Amino acid sequence: MYQSSESLGRLVSLLSRLPGVGRKTAGRLAFHILKMPVEEARELAETIVAVKEKVGTCSVCCNISESDPCAVCTDARRDRSIICVVEEASDIIALEKAEEFRPLYHVLGGRLSPLDGIGPDDLNIKALLKRLDGSVKEVIVATNPDVEGDATAMYLNKLIQPFGVKVTRIARGLPVGGDLEYADGVTITRALQGRQEL
Amino acid sequence: MYQSSESLGRLVSLLSRLPGVGRKTAGRLAFHILKMPVEEARELAETIVAVKEKVGTCSVCCNISESDPCAVCTDARRDRSIICVVEEASDIIALEKAEEFRPLYHVLGGRLSPLDGIGPDDLNIKALLKRLDGSVKEVIVATNPDVEGDATAMYLNKLIQPFGVKVTRIARGLPVGGDLEYADGVTITRALQGRQEL
Repeated sequence: MYQSSESLGRLVSLLSRLPGVGRKTAGRLAFHILKMPVEEARELAETIVAVKEKVGTCSVCCNISESDPCAVCTDARRDRSIICVVEEASDIIALEKAEEFRPLYHVLGGRLSPLDGIGPDDLNIKALLKRLDGSVKEVIVATNPDVEGDATAMYLNKLIQPFGVKVTRIARGLPVGGDLEYADGVTITRALQGRQEL
Repeated sequence: MYQSSESLGRLVSLLSRLPGVGRKTAGRLAFHILKMPVEEARELAETIVAVKEKVGTCSVCCNISESDPCAVCTDARRDRSIICVVEEASDIIALEKAEEFRPLYHVLGGRLSPLDGIGPDDLNIKALLKRLDGSVKEVIVATNPDVEGDATAMYLNKLIQPFGVKVTRIARGLPVGGDLEYADGVTITRALQGRQEL
């Protein structure tokens, strides 16, 4: 294939390895980078390296962090009686959108998935159990609302019950602003099962 | 907004400036970069800088290139009697997909667009006229098939005619593999106007 410059071709092939970026998008991004002011391109390059060098893992909650323990674990204003368990660090960003709700978190680093060969030992479950020292009253399992997320939640429930800690699961139902007409049957079933008195 | 790491937040905001990349995509890309092997992230960073440092412009055809003149202009196997005029360097990559066709190119660096304040002096038109030294028999104007691309083609035609060089425009019609049913009226009109005897 024709390419006008070797380094540009290499950039296209590196960018096209990113998730959701095909060859065409990679080409458009590479040409954009080529036209960028040189300081901006340099900043992008330096930040990519900085992310790899600075960002580590919190030894308490397994969230990504530049400090250990992380800013969430050391935040005194949080409700330290609730641990919200998520699959990935990126899920915390989504949950923090619920502004009235400031619990501690615990990142599992995935979910139980026997088909992919992911068992309990591949997840940060031991570190979670170590945190149940009496100050924690509730563990909210906020794994994704699918079969594997549900299975992981059930497994965690079994493990955590002996500690005398309440285990809850985030609610399933219709998304706010959604449309009944377009909702799938399983979601509607869950929304009916989870109905609440007004 | 909550962010788990300052450098990760900075990477997200830098990535979201790229074309077609919103905040959510930028977040997904940033987390992917965070999980990349460190050598791969470093290679990506270095290539971004290399593209900015190594890639310049060919003084003949104004295409982007790491050498001057570029590899196309110095390629002896090309048909040097035809110059194909394009808006952007990225258009050459598209045109080179037509494998039977190996002309020289000329990159305008845009198209005439009075509304955006882009006039003839903002395009590489003088450099194009300087190349019409008798060896060139045809200039194919391959600006985009829209109003501004057409206007640019007409303007170039007027300038080039006095040199006794044939000026042609790429054909408009139905895309190969396309479907008459879904084609717009203007394209169908062009396809009928451009009909050819079998």
